Amino acid sequence: MNPLSPILPVTARRDAAGHLHAGGCDLVALAETHGTPLYLYDQATLDHAVSDYRGALAEHWPGDAEIAYAVKAWFNLAAAQWAASSGLGLDVVSLGEWEIARRAGFPPERVHLHGNNKPRSLLHAAIVGGVGSVVVDHEVELAMIEEVAAAAGRRQPLWLRLNPAVAADTHHHIETGSARSKFGLSLSDGTVMRVARAALASPHVELVGLHAHIGSQIADTAPLVAAVRTLLGFAAELHGATGWAPRDLSPGGGWAVPYTPGDPHLTPAEAIAAISRALLDGCQQHGLPLPRLVLEPGRELVARAGVALYRVGALKQAADVHYAFIDGGLADNPRPALYDARYTALLANRDAPQDATYTLAGPFCESGDILIHEARLPALQPGDLLAVPVSGAYQLSMASNYNAAPRPAVLWLHEGQTALIQRRETFDDLLSRDLPVFDDLRPTTDDR
Amino acid sequence: MNPLSPILPVTARRDAAGHLHAGGCDLVALAETHGTPLYLYDQATLDHAVSDYRGALAEHWPGDAEIAYAVKAWFNLAAAQWAASSGLGLDVVSLGEWEIARRAGFPPERVHLHGNNKPRSLLHAAIVGGVGSVVVDHEVELAMIEEVAAAAGRRQPLWLRLNPAVAADTHHHIETGSARSKFGLSLSDGTVMRVARAALASPHVELVGLHAHIGSQIADTAPLVAAVRTLLGFAAELHGATGWAPRDLSPGGGWAVPYTPGDPHLTPAEAIAAISRALLDGCQQHGLPLPRLVLEPGRELVARAGVALYRVGALKQAADVHYAFIDGGLADNPRPALYDARYTALLANRDAPQDATYTLAGPFCESGDILIHEARLPALQPGDLLAVPVSGAYQLSMASNYNAAPRPAVLWLHEGQTALIQRRETFDDLLSRDLPVFDDLRPTTDDR
Repeated sequence: MNPLSPILPVTARRDAAGHLHAGGCDLVALAETHGTPLYLYDQATLDHAVSDYRGALAEHWPGDAEIAYAVKAWFNLAAAQWAASSGLGLDVVSLGEWEIARRAGFPPERVHLHGNNKPRSLLHAAIVGGVGSVVVDHEVELAMIEEVAAAAGRRQPLWLRLNPAVAADTHHHIETGSARSKFGLSLSDGTVMRVARAALASPHVELVGLHAHIGSQIADTAPLVAAVRTLLGFAAELHGATGWAPRDLSPGGGWAVPYTPGDPHLTPAEAIAAISRALLDGCQQHGLPLPRLVLEPGRELVARAGVALYRVGALKQAADVHYAFIDGGLADNPRPALYDARYTALLANRDAPQDATYTLAGPFCESGDILIHEARLPALQPGDLLAVPVSGAYQLSMASNYNAAPRPAVLWLHEGQTALIQRRETFDDLLSRDLPVFDDLRPTTDDR
Repeated sequence: MNPLSPILPVTARRDAAGHLHAGGCDLVALAETHGTPLYLYDQATLDHAVSDYRGALAEHWPGDAEIAYAVKAWFNLAAAQWAASSGLGLDVVSLGEWEIARRAGFPPERVHLHGNNKPRSLLHAAIVGGVGSVVVDHEVELAMIEEVAAAAGRRQPLWLRLNPAVAADTHHHIETGSARSKFGLSLSDGTVMRVARAALASPHVELVGLHAHIGSQIADTAPLVAAVRTLLGFAAELHGATGWAPRDLSPGGGWAVPYTPGDPHLTPAEAIAAISRALLDGCQQHGLPLPRLVLEPGRELVARAGVALYRVGALKQAADVHYAFIDGGLADNPRPALYDARYTALLANRDAPQDATYTLAGPFCESGDILIHEARLPALQPGDLLAVPVSGAYQLSMASNYNAAPRPAVLWLHEGQTALIQRRETFDDLLSRDLPVFDDLRPTTDDR
């Protein structure tokens, strides 16, 4: 087996000519037709991920369950439609994400509204629009939700996001469960109990769930189990005081996704087994009914399904560094610069032994525009096509127009068929919001 | 004097009501009219920066000079028009930047084309379009330029970018002059001499300049002086061998801009004095005629002119951290997450002693979305308006739509007048490239 197989789409294979395929499509042909950089999503890999969750839940969890896709990882009309047709829920955190889900026709009752600083406009749109749950993230938010719900004549289902004060071993930018995090209601100072009692006393909201999220790229089940125990401990306390028990319980998402063959991977099966065991034990211990288990993965559902294709430009040696310049990088994938994220690359247009080492750098005017340091690859030639696996999450959603780079086209691949789900950005797009400031120097408009 | 004065626009003041003004405009009123997050550019501060360069050149440099704005810092139609009307040159690095300059009517002969991996399409557009100079960044690029110039029937003026192997004391992402950098032609292995001789022998190109750029946020003149000496040392060697002398000589840009009152600042006057002295001494020493001195500042020209306005949402205490949540952050300004960049903030809607400390966090679903750690501010209330100075460079040009956040509106301020130079992005904009993938779940289109 190719050592890269676990990080490639499930449909990846090479044909007799050495071309890499995914979703039944020849990636070399796709790059010819659509240009590069090009992003591809393989539906079979997305569906496979959902099946993994469903299988693990069927094996380990006897109660109801929901898989809610955290759309911040990657979102657009196609992703919303896929999530809808797959029976998933959605986590959204902004008016923009809510609006995309709405326009895609996503069932609003399957949407959870998260966010540490939800503006009133967002709460209004979501509550009037029938959002499934609003997740209270700080104390003064409850009053705002009550006002909006009262004005809308709706009794709004609520979750509370607890800050479990769990330290997770991950990059400080993506660690969200510490006591000093901007997210969640503090347990230790009594905030969450105050908010819960106020919610239970309100005619305008209905407390239905408890949630915690401890961070991203969590490679170990221990902090997940600790978070579940914390959630259940609070549920038991509230149950003892008021008789309330959670209908929904969500330990978030964030299990580690491997980007390179040696990376840690917390599989859905491992995460769900550990979470289910902790929940079953805790519910029995505390005399709580089994809640609906809500899982909120983002990256883990979509990262592996995505592949980025780049064309090799010039090759260059600088001191001991062998550069292969490619036509994308910092603008379409800021993760190496933001998180020191590591990737691998494959030569997509021919098969050859990986007996050379290249640093893959983009065309952007910044030394931080290094996509991969010292990638093992065959000896490259200008014009070669490179595929970067595990490009499905937090790349396009964080992409910029740095150096006025148009954002890439995105294709959906399924059983040999392709659909363009996002067209490549044009220079007209880049200038569509611009207005001239000086009357004596109007822009040329001959070809706009 | 307010300790923040050196980092505010030159027109900044407070009125009797305590409202912050810039460019003769009340920022509180602008935020009411245009919403937040809002970016403002003060023309007087932009013009002041150019005057600083012109004044220092007049004082220190007896030869010809050009100030070429490196547009990667911030670019759009208005910026291009301002640069054109101010008599600046432009540095562009991509087809998108070239196209924006072209559509703004910027004189192509004042454009320098940089970039470590210029595609043929970019070289073709720029050479056919009459670009002032193409900056050769690696060895095989010369042949491509010759081909394109020959086909276009143009003798293309060229610069060579030397890698001076100068180590600058700055963030590793923005350090560009080391021997292992992706940028420039190596001196030490003879590459630059080979390329120079080939260029001089070609009928399709005209070697006219030498360039080096050692990085960004350089706080000390020593590495600039070292880069000038390296450029002149090579010029003297080539002059001795062939009689050629550079018409243009550019030590790049990158002098340090202060973001907070205590930060180092390498002023244009200091940089130009040191560069001029090194150039005058070196030209005399080597018997070279004085070249045209080309300066290529980006950030230093525009950073101080820009101010970002944010509205305070919820306030929250988490352990010992006092959060003030604002309505922008990681998406419109990724610099704190990318570079640990530090900023300050001012309360814009009233004047009060700065006797409180807040961590300013945006609404984005990531712990890295902290705009400022522990900003000194007056005690805040929800609805307060905050101004973040020195927001003019590498914020909008690196902005994303993370969490489906629309990019901010941008206003041009001058003598009490405002012009909208970029309208706020809409949800229609966010979805303008999207196509549905499933026929059975078409998007709702009632309000697109």
